[in-house]
Amino acid sequence: MVTVGIDLGGTNIAAGVVSQEGKILAQAQRRTQAERPYQQVVRDMAGTALDAVERAGLTLDDVASIGVGVPGFFDRKSGVVVFCTNLGWRDVPLGAEMARYIDKPLYGDNDATVAGFAEAIAGVSQGARHSVFLTLGTGLGSGIILNGKIWSGAHGVGGELGHIMYKQGGIPCTCGAQGCLERYASATALARIAREAAERYPQSSLAKIAGDRMNAKAVIDEVQKGDAAAIEAFDEYTTHLANGIITIISFLDPELIVLGGGVSHAGETLLEPVRRKVEKGKFFKTLPTGKIVLAALGNEAGIIGAAMLHRA
Amino acid sequence: MVTVGIDLGGTNIAAGVVSQEGKILAQAQRRTQAERPYQQVVRDMAGTALDAVERAGLTLDDVASIGVGVPGFFDRKSGVVVFCTNLGWRDVPLGAEMARYIDKPLYGDNDATVAGFAEAIAGVSQGARHSVFLTLGTGLGSGIILNGKIWSGAHGVGGELGHIMYKQGGIPCTCGAQGCLERYASATALARIAREAAERYPQSSLAKIAGDRMNAKAVIDEVQKGDAAAIEAFDEYTTHLANGIITIISFLDPELIVLGGGVSHAGETLLEPVRRKVEKGKFFKTLPTGKIVLAALGNEAGIIGAAMLHRA
Repeated sequence: MVTVGIDLGGTNIAAGVVSQEGKILAQAQRRTQAERPYQQVVRDMAGTALDAVERAGLTLDDVASIGVGVPGFFDRKSGVVVFCTNLGWRDVPLGAEMARYIDKPLYGDNDATVAGFAEAIAGVSQGARHSVFLTLGTGLGSGIILNGKIWSGAHGVGGELGHIMYKQGGIPCTCGAQGCLERYASATALARIAREAAERYPQSSLAKIAGDRMNAKAVIDEVQKGDAAAIEAFDEYTTHLANGIITIISFLDPELIVLGGGVSHAGETLLEPVRRKVEKGKFFKTLPTGKIVLAALGNEAGIIGAAMLHRA
Repeated sequence: MVTVGIDLGGTNIAAGVVSQEGKILAQAQRRTQAERPYQQVVRDMAGTALDAVERAGLTLDDVASIGVGVPGFFDRKSGVVVFCTNLGWRDVPLGAEMARYIDKPLYGDNDATVAGFAEAIAGVSQGARHSVFLTLGTGLGSGIILNGKIWSGAHGVGGELGHIMYKQGGIPCTCGAQGCLERYASATALARIAREAAERYPQSSLAKIAGDRMNAKAVIDEVQKGDAAAIEAFDEYTTHLANGIITIISFLDPELIVLGGGVSHAGETLLEPVRRKVEKGKFFKTLPTGKIVLAALGNEAGIIGAAMLHRA
């Protein structure tokens, strides 16, 4: 038997047929076109899943369950997507709607949580019992894995590390609070910090990056080329990220802290300062704490983790 | 069979004989006199335990195990107190030293963690599977209980919620970092905030409280008498505490958040604004989250929790 994982994004729906070992056997993709009524989006989610099953040379009889990663809040008990801001979804009965097309058990969870679970099943945190995954993208998503299972808390609202308070009274967050970690440690935050550095150093190479092109990748490129303004901005960013990781260690002390998402493509450029600052700043300075590593599965994590949700 | 719990404090050693249901059958106490060599302190810990056993009309044959709550970091594997700042202890072999006097299995953990475990076994969080306990005292201690067991993390360094970052770049902390939650949400923080309010309102009743007498109890008394400066200070304090609790919800989403320690004696004066601010500020505003309640066991939590560590 295989399972199907669906990664529902604001731009694309990606689906894959996944083996019990967490290998993708076949994939398919469609545009989300999120502005449509949700019924049409769910119909295309089912269609994408069926495409992937066909490409794998299989039929639905070979599929044990469907899993979906949603960029929002999925209620496991009811099968309802309670919130999904960037799709404009509110209380969408995903489970019931999907059952019209594919009558299989449906599992779902937040997309960052799903990616963290994928890393724990088939990626860098495979074999670790406790890990915390951070996706450093437009937002700061996270997934907490304890004893090999997804930890979402007593009411399913935990594991939202983008919105733990990091700087009380700080930058207003999209969530309505001020100073959330996401405002300091996401890819969006890195671009904001770089824009501020570019203003301080108008002659820098960093300052030549215009408007929308100032994103995490552009900043990291300048860091790796040695631009002093970019290095200063990235140093500020890694301090924030390291502080966030220190909070994760002081709170939960996982075996592994896994970094994914856009900023993680900086590789050692990111890891070296973050590891150094965590060692210097952590509470119990002389005691061992969790390793900080890069995610291994990249974009496939969404499909693999969703397909594995039956084990979560 | 019974077990013995020892609550090792900077001022007193308290020991109690505890039933399997978590009831204290007899107690004894001695002065810690922490300036002495640790060997003498441990000898008196054993002596206090034996006093309690005798007062219970029992002998060591009736005792299954000993548990100790220490105001520091206890390494379960080695039985060593790695740090204990206010006793001046560093790498003290508590297990080996205690075995010279009482040859029983010895368990140990941080005192706030022990108190949180006591509440989960025999106090307000009895029956809850997941709870987070905060002791709002000189520092901000904490205990995390997941699935009915103490959660200290993969390396035993978790559950230090006093030192999660709350205000990056904020008030320097005793730990060397800046802006730790402890600096904003402990009883010590309440006294600091009240001193600042007293300076702003020199005619207030609050401002008449001199120097060392400005402590959490004095501030709460003024709040309950209706002094406007004290009310303003307490309002600032409850905002910080509520923000800290929101972070706990966004991170771990426990069933219960239990407030103990000096500030918790404010009772409803504390609970009402904290609950209101958490509801208003939490990330998923329309979804249910953990209840915020007062600790039930008071000073006995240290003895009860220590005695129950064999179940942790």
